[in-house]
Amino acid sequence: MKYSLSLALLSTVLGAPRLQAKALLQKAVIDSAHQVDDLAFQVSQATLGRTYSGKNFSMTRQQLKGGLQDGTTLLTVDNGALKIVLIPTRGMGILDVVANGQVRYGWDSPIKEVVHPKFINLHDRGGLGWLEGFNEFLVRCGVEYAGSPGVDKFINNRGKEDSSALTLHGRIANIPASKVEVLVEAGNPATIRVRGEVRELTFLGPKLILTTELVTQVGSSSFEVHDTITNVGSGDQEYQLVYHTNFGTPLLEAGAQFVAPIKSLQPREPMQPDALERYTTYQGPAPRFVEEVFFMTPYANAEGITTVGLTNRDKSLGASLSFPIQHLPYLSLWKNTASVEDGYVTGIEPGTSYPNNRSVERAAGRVPVLKAGESVALSIKFSFHTTPQSVATMIREVEAIKDGRATEMK
Amino acid sequence: MKYSLSLALLSTVLGAPRLQAKALLQKAVIDSAHQVDDLAFQVSQATLGRTYSGKNFSMTRQQLKGGLQDGTTLLTVDNGALKIVLIPTRGMGILDVVANGQVRYGWDSPIKEVVHPKFINLHDRGGLGWLEGFNEFLVRCGVEYAGSPGVDKFINNRGKEDSSALTLHGRIANIPASKVEVLVEAGNPATIRVRGEVRELTFLGPKLILTTELVTQVGSSSFEVHDTITNVGSGDQEYQLVYHTNFGTPLLEAGAQFVAPIKSLQPREPMQPDALERYTTYQGPAPRFVEEVFFMTPYANAEGITTVGLTNRDKSLGASLSFPIQHLPYLSLWKNTASVEDGYVTGIEPGTSYPNNRSVERAAGRVPVLKAGESVALSIKFSFHTTPQSVATMIREVEAIKDGRATEMK
Amino acid sequence: MKYSLSLALLSTVLGAPRLQAKALLQKAVIDSAHQVDDLAFQVSQATLGRTYSGKNFSMTRQQLKGGLQDGTTLLTVDNGALKIVLIPTRGMGILDVVANGQVRYGWDSPIKEVVHPKFINLHDRGGLGWLEGFNEFLVRCGVEYAGSPGVDKFINNRGKEDSSALTLHGRIANIPASKVEVLVEAGNPATIRVRGEVRELTFLGPKLILTTELVTQVGSSSFEVHDTITNVGSGDQEYQLVYHTNFGTPLLEAGAQFVAPIKSLQPREPMQPDALERYTTYQGPAPRFVEEVFFMTPYANAEGITTVGLTNRDKSLGASLSFPIQHLPYLSLWKNTASVEDGYVTGIEPGTSYPNNRSVERAAGRVPVLKAGESVALSIKFSFHTTPQSVATMIREVEAIKDGRATEMK
Repeated sequence: MKYSLSLALLSTVLGAPRLQAKALLQKAVIDSAHQVDDLAFQVSQATLGRTYSGKNFSMTRQQLKGGLQDGTTLLTVDNGALKIVLIPTRGMGILDVVANGQVRYGWDSPIKEVVHPKFINLHDRGGLGWLEGFNEFLVRCGVEYAGSPGVDKFINNRGKEDSSALTLHGRIANIPASKVEVLVEAGNPATIRVRGEVRELTFLGPKLILTTELVTQVGSSSFEVHDTITNVGSGDQEYQLVYHTNFGTPLLEAGAQFVAPIKSLQPREPMQPDALERYTTYQGPAPRFVEEVFFMTPYANAEGITTVGLTNRDKSLGASLSFPIQHLPYLSLWKNTASVEDGYVTGIEPGTSYPNNRSVERAAGRVPVLKAGESVALSIKFSFHTTPQSVATMIREVEAIKDGRATEMK
Repeated sequence: MKYSLSLALLSTVLGAPRLQAKALLQKAVIDSAHQVDDLAFQVSQATLGRTYSGKNFSMTRQQLKGGLQDGTTLLTVDNGALKIVLIPTRGMGILDVVANGQVRYGWDSPIKEVVHPKFINLHDRGGLGWLEGFNEFLVRCGVEYAGSPGVDKFINNRGKEDSSALTLHGRIANIPASKVEVLVEAGNPATIRVRGEVRELTFLGPKLILTTELVTQVGSSSFEVHDTITNVGSGDQEYQLVYHTNFGTPLLEAGAQFVAPIKSLQPREPMQPDALERYTTYQGPAPRFVEEVFFMTPYANAEGITTVGLTNRDKSLGASLSFPIQHLPYLSLWKNTASVEDGYVTGIEPGTSYPNNRSVERAAGRVPVLKAGESVALSIKFSFHTTPQSVATMIREVEAIKDGRATEMK
Repeated sequence: MKYSLSLALLSTVLGAPRLQAKALLQKAVIDSAHQVDDLAFQVSQATLGRTYSGKNFSMTRQQLKGGLQDGTTLLTVDNGALKIVLIPTRGMGILDVVANGQVRYGWDSPIKEVVHPKFINLHDRGGLGWLEGFNEFLVRCGVEYAGSPGVDKFINNRGKEDSSALTLHGRIANIPASKVEVLVEAGNPATIRVRGEVRELTFLGPKLILTTELVTQVGSSSFEVHDTITNVGSGDQEYQLVYHTNFGTPLLEAGAQFVAPIKSLQPREPMQPDALERYTTYQGPAPRFVEEVFFMTPYANAEGITTVGLTNRDKSLGASLSFPIQHLPYLSLWKNTASVEDGYVTGIEPGTSYPNNRSVERAAGRVPVLKAGESVALSIKFSFHTTPQSVATMIREVEAIKDGRATEMK
């Protein structure tokens, strides 16, 4: 069981409260096994009947209406400092995060609705149907496959030669959660947890279950995501997971900076040397901009944790991701500084691999395998920096991890 | 902006009340941007609390139940003379029209339910999945592509060679409206408007929005449809729109006549000369009838408006479409006088092109392009003739447009 | 009309009450033609206001919630001895059957939810999307096509060469019923009927309607399924129907026995002679077991009825299927004694053909055709044996049909 190791690492370094304290609330909001679907779920400091030091908090479910979002469920966690909008209907992705009621982290996709999977055909446009629902701050690519569309030939879990027409970024973001549970734990501050279970199962094929926990403390400017992928089948099973984390304005702007302790760097396509050297700097929106993708590995600190982030031009706003690199050794940077109309956005994407077609990643030895019954745990802490001080601290943290070591340009 | 021109043309000639009078009612029935989904929407002369000269009118929403129509929404506009059933769930198509409570315009498809898009896979049967929901009086084909299925190779809006497996008649008829708004305007008679917005959007791909307005006056035997297609992306974008308008019994029967001021005519497949000459006359239902398709261009009057229609055998019933040919220069006639069981129907189809695969239409120079932010306006007036006098007037109108000019057989 | 013949046969031999007695209840639960969708439907001996000799009975509808089963409807028929869970949303399949409140007939699929068709893409994984919803006791494969995925070239019903990418086991199990009607008829015991109508229709293509009736008597340990497939189009139409009837534990176990009067037997793939000889005996769950499929024809008795079944090792539990072989001459046995995690299950599958791709079955002359308007009736009686005596009676019945005749190994 690989689970314990990386969680232990993360809790040691990040101080995540992994041991569950006394639960003031533990409630299933959705549970297909027990006919639970609490459409009017809402809880707050007030409804719990207890007061805490610190800020108010709440959790609220909302059913979206109209057009392509008919039936989509949102679950908003407001910890008093961050308002985090989860999408149970779309694989427990995160639509956006608003810090201090002022700064929105996320991006402005041309897709305005939170599209229900019943309206998505992943095989559309030669396997690009996924793009018709793409507007999240955090969307998971995976978990059977995570990369570019196209036929992948492989040996299936019954030992036979097989092939499959993979679709862009996999299926998990278009599978509704079978179970969503919320917890509030006593403490000063209190702790909020949202657990989700998303099943990617087929008979005579892959059987992978994603369980995810979002955990945050009341008043905190960060939250953690703890994911577990379990192979519930009886044979070996490949898996892939890429955390497609996306930022637009106001954080992204001309002069915004990618900040990360990069060990190795390779552009997806050949690139002019000077363009490559400017890879940490962003341009403003440009109508005919063609996306640039960089494949990287990050350095980690002695505990195996890395931190990568983004700042705006004057370093008054930032966001960062901290995670153990043990199971997320590959980091992709997607620069899509296109027009506002087409979607001005950058993706910072820790992954078990790069988002190439699985056939490419397998050939490069980057597709891990779970044995029967085995699980792997993947964790990321997301932090939101809304003061120059907080941004500066994040930059120093990245520099400390880098510790003067070189970046290898491939 | 091409919008103004053709609307101006239409309002000049058809007298359409384009300037909005005092709204007695303006209400969103569906609006995904504002969480509006008024399932019990109903309004009538009585509920508005005012009386008008002229006939009673009403607008009523209905949620369909059971089978493949579970969740489909209808919006019925009854102007006192016409009962028009709109389908917001299916791209604002029109299911059928009943005139004077007596004559139904539409057809009897073997598909009896108003199929919800969640049950349609457009890629089914080699791209013919569209046919599993086809039973409307008016169904739009488009708006990214509108014709026959098959791979189309093209230069995409990022300047790269691309290809896409197009599906029959495009996607717009299987996209639910994101916004539906109704208006009632004072007047003698009052005016009723239903506005819909249907979005055909994808990230890294086409971004087209269809806004449509159906407008009619209380007591009128006609209504107009005013559509606008807008390219909300930042690059050039092709579009196609074919108005697949379909007629069955009682209008269609042995001896029914197609009435139109045709300038040029070409059968889709080679045809015997005598068969070609009889193209304006319909046969009765025939089990082994193979569909006949004619590609045409119509003459227009001095203002650029044409009128095309259909009459029954004894010219006591008819229907006609009047429209500016500027953006709808191509007219297709689909004769499918098959058995009653298989669907006895004819389609009169004004379009921005013919319904061939987009590759064929592009090669023929018939696929228009919208630049970034640009819109195009397309309008059709549908009139329903239920007396010999009204039919005769329509035929004279067509003859006046033709004005003795020749029809070129290609 | 082929209907009368086989039903007459079945009622003669099995004593099925085909003539309708006085209906104490006749009610539409779902009816898309009349806007009926009675979500809270429930009826029982008590609510009918009359008492009968014999056991209590009830019928109860339930809407499933959460994950991939959101919106799925179940209809549970409890005749006092059997609790039969029908799935109107999935083509009137049967999820499972519990006998005497103790023995569950069905199987433990890795798919735990009753997946709504809106989440199934039959074209997924090269046409294997069907497997993502597969967990029923009885799932119909059909009715346009029923077998393995792959392109089938054929002459369509307009006389043209055509081809279609067939998907595994057809579409009918992923089409919601357009009509569900329940009946209770007076008698001692009373009779319960559930009728469903599932439409597999497309314009310019196949038009097949499945009407199905499940009939059982209060207190009975058996029920019958009477299906009619009707070609409502105006041309000839092929059809296929394979009754994929599936058994897991407790009935299936190491030493469980397949019991059937087999006339001819051929393994789907070449097999060692000794393995072939052991084909009636099952193994326990085995992780790397590769499915074994046997294509058979059964002997019938003088009335044309056969009986095939399954017993556990010590012959204390069993189940059997009795049916006229006239329209179901082909019997497939699917042994999938895989791991519990992957699904330990066997399928006993009477069919109009074997579940090969339709192209294979057509070439072998096993794809029947319905002329315009024609129907075919298919009937199976399912019996559940929960005592050694009942199992022994079933085995004697099979032996009597076999009557010492030889099994031809092909």
